[in-house]
Amino acid sequence: MNHFTSAHDVTDIDHLIERTLAFKANRYTTGTEGRGKRLGLLFLNPSMRTRISTQIAAENLGMHTIVFNIDKEGWQLELTDGAIMNGTSVEHIKDAAPVLGSYFDIIGVRTFPTLANRDADNNEELINALKKYAGVPILSLESTTVHPLQSLTDLATIAETHTMKTRPRVVLLWAPHVKPLPQCVPNSFAEWVTKWDKADLIIANPQGYDLNDKYTKGATQLHNPENALRDADFVYVKNWSAYNDYGTLPAVSGDWLLNEELMKLTNNARVMHCLPVRRNVELSDEILDSPNSLVTQQASNRVWAAQAVLSELLKQTK
Amino acid sequence: MNHFTSAHDVTDIDHLIERTLAFKANRYTTGTEGRGKRLGLLFLNPSMRTRISTQIAAENLGMHTIVFNIDKEGWQLELTDGAIMNGTSVEHIKDAAPVLGSYFDIIGVRTFPTLANRDADNNEELINALKKYAGVPILSLESTTVHPLQSLTDLATIAETHTMKTRPRVVLLWAPHVKPLPQCVPNSFAEWVTKWDKADLIIANPQGYDLNDKYTKGATQLHNPENALRDADFVYVKNWSAYNDYGTLPAVSGDWLLNEELMKLTNNARVMHCLPVRRNVELSDEILDSPNSLVTQQASNRVWAAQAVLSELLKQTK
Amino acid sequence: MNHFTSAHDVTDIDHLIERTLAFKANRYTTGTEGRGKRLGLLFLNPSMRTRISTQIAAENLGMHTIVFNIDKEGWQLELTDGAIMNGTSVEHIKDAAPVLGSYFDIIGVRTFPTLANRDADNNEELINALKKYAGVPILSLESTTVHPLQSLTDLATIAETHTMKTRPRVVLLWAPHVKPLPQCVPNSFAEWVTKWDKADLIIANPQGYDLNDKYTKGATQLHNPENALRDADFVYVKNWSAYNDYGTLPAVSGDWLLNEELMKLTNNARVMHCLPVRRNVELSDEILDSPNSLVTQQASNRVWAAQAVLSELLKQTK
Repeated sequence: MNHFTSAHDVTDIDHLIERTLAFKANRYTTGTEGRGKRLGLLFLNPSMRTRISTQIAAENLGMHTIVFNIDKEGWQLELTDGAIMNGTSVEHIKDAAPVLGSYFDIIGVRTFPTLANRDADNNEELINALKKYAGVPILSLESTTVHPLQSLTDLATIAETHTMKTRPRVVLLWAPHVKPLPQCVPNSFAEWVTKWDKADLIIANPQGYDLNDKYTKGATQLHNPENALRDADFVYVKNWSAYNDYGTLPAVSGDWLLNEELMKLTNNARVMHCLPVRRNVELSDEILDSPNSLVTQQASNRVWAAQAVLSELLKQTK
Repeated sequence: MNHFTSAHDVTDIDHLIERTLAFKANRYTTGTEGRGKRLGLLFLNPSMRTRISTQIAAENLGMHTIVFNIDKEGWQLELTDGAIMNGTSVEHIKDAAPVLGSYFDIIGVRTFPTLANRDADNNEELINALKKYAGVPILSLESTTVHPLQSLTDLATIAETHTMKTRPRVVLLWAPHVKPLPQCVPNSFAEWVTKWDKADLIIANPQGYDLNDKYTKGATQLHNPENALRDADFVYVKNWSAYNDYGTLPAVSGDWLLNEELMKLTNNARVMHCLPVRRNVELSDEILDSPNSLVTQQASNRVWAAQAVLSELLKQTK
Repeated sequence: MNHFTSAHDVTDIDHLIERTLAFKANRYTTGTEGRGKRLGLLFLNPSMRTRISTQIAAENLGMHTIVFNIDKEGWQLELTDGAIMNGTSVEHIKDAAPVLGSYFDIIGVRTFPTLANRDADNNEELINALKKYAGVPILSLESTTVHPLQSLTDLATIAETHTMKTRPRVVLLWAPHVKPLPQCVPNSFAEWVTKWDKADLIIANPQGYDLNDKYTKGATQLHNPENALRDADFVYVKNWSAYNDYGTLPAVSGDWLLNEELMKLTNNARVMHCLPVRRNVELSDEILDSPNSLVTQQASNRVWAAQAVLSELLKQTK
């Protein structure tokens, strides 16, 4: 695994899940493999769980970590090749990347989509420039299209909760929100579950909110929560904005807030969410505070997933 | 000691003072007790001494520390139970706390009062929610009503400066300022000195600036600096805004800026301040630069007080 | 070496260059000399390379580092003696410095010039107050007049690139920019190269952009790029604003953007820049992407230069 920026970088998802759960059982299993190695964590956007869990994962492996909030402690990066930089961007990624690559053994980076320029977002300009110019493994901490560290955590949480003797029925359920959110988490979840191929994935969202079908091949697409939820073993609740009419919030018909009534349709499903969640907007108190909720367990597993990934990436460092 | 969020959490103040001074004498006395333990320091407000001294204290004990500026690197937390989160807050403390509790062995947090909503400030919503939901010891780095790490430092500084064979006369003296400040430091100082009961505490402030009497029981309250300062051994200078007409700055009569003339009334008193201090507004150059000033010693003692507290809290970690 | 704030603090530049290149050859040469020592890095302004490379250098020496963004995580410092602090500054450097000096074994600090008040900038108020009041070695991370860590890196990069059997011809070439920049990097480069006295320094800039001659004594001053570039071995490209009409951008005649045509005048010169560089404004893609560019090597050497300096400063700590 040269980089960890999407499911495409991973050849054996089950191996990564096993490693995640092995680190959970013993966080220092391989505690010295990162000794003398340095991880740079670059943030262009806010982060809590990803920021903290990745630092902890690196420390558990014996690595040194340096966090750099590019947006606040640095300056704006230019991503366009050939740009005449007479505007607001101060440094080109072509110059920053090789320097960062000389400082760090692995570079993690978070950058959110514009939700305005779909092509630019789909091009993953920052991630790809880092891959091209930094010369070290790149770790996505969520990018303009996907959030693979979250997806690995999600699959590990499903795997440790379900016996996996039967294929669980997993529903990715769109939820209401007050503003346009990225499609990264649902894109990535769909990509990982379908590639994993150990669960049946049903995606339910209002008309106008279908995800980019690049990520959803192999999943069943529905536009009605009731049909989707029937016999569900897991319900992954998440809001996202429209992909077709990019970044907008088309009018929604019907009630998409998961409640106890809808939960009765499920197979006593476990409810997942990547957090942060807006209570009583995306998901109700009654469900978040019920024993069906896996959200804390999911977030807590972020450490072990990051540790599994870093452990693999360390093999590519000099 | 399950938490360290006010004097109420402490059964034996003298023991904590002894530990503080023992760490000052030998910072590595118990240098391995924090090995493999992780401290999260969450800031919702600015901090210099508390931020740095607590990091150093943790490192001296062998702990790993992760600093997270929630206000700048994260997002706004919701504290109200049952809130419909369709406004500006992004994550409920009920969801954040257990996740943070799974990441850290001890959580330190700083949050300032609103100075607008007295009941909310008195309720210590954030500190109490963390205690309730995080499942790990909570360390106050100053909250909406008190600043116990500062108070422990203050008492240790008095104890190492005075022989303590006699009860020192300690004056908490209100000082002018240009804007409304929290009552946390004076509340906390009064609470600790009176609970400690090894010094006589006189509080002097203008009419309208009396502190919440919850914190000042056992102290003598005066509204005139001259009477208060007579024979003082220590003068703790500090501004605060009104508690009764909450967060306002009632008109002040008389001159409350400590000067050399007033100092003559004292028993060659040592002058204390928690810093930052506005020179020549709260306290004059002549006093701050005199040998009577303890302010640097106080601030420097912050490290050892934090180390004493962390050392106790570590006993509660798994 | 008591401090590292300008070339004046250094008695033997060649020794520092040798140490820089020795650490490059073996970053752990003296890996335990910083054990138990603590470096505080204080930022009043943004930084990427300096911030990260100095943290890494300290870690390589076994030191603990604490980064504190005074401007964002703290508050405004007052630098004027005797100030009545009823404005926006919250803490006087006279109070902050001894506290920081009690927390850290070495203090690094970055502060930019105002470019408005030339006398204040020339006085290096913050650096000098830290030297006076902190009681520990002060390390400049770029100040209001100079950037000595950058200059040491620059000389080490020249020394490792040139055989140094002949004196290289080094041209400091002014370049266009979109806004007024400090003179720190060119001041410092001129000061170091002339003190070093192992290279011929030619400074070329438009009329009105002459640097403070305090820094340029011993260099040849030209106002025309062609004459300057003839037979150059190194071209150090950098923008700066006017010193005489302080902080302004006087009208420029002629074309000062280094291009391949101008490069033909040189002795196949190596091109240097401290980064960040605005591509196609200060320096063209064709030159930055050519084998003549040393910019990544320069930035990468920042780690070893910082390590050499910290290693010397550690000798002054208790």
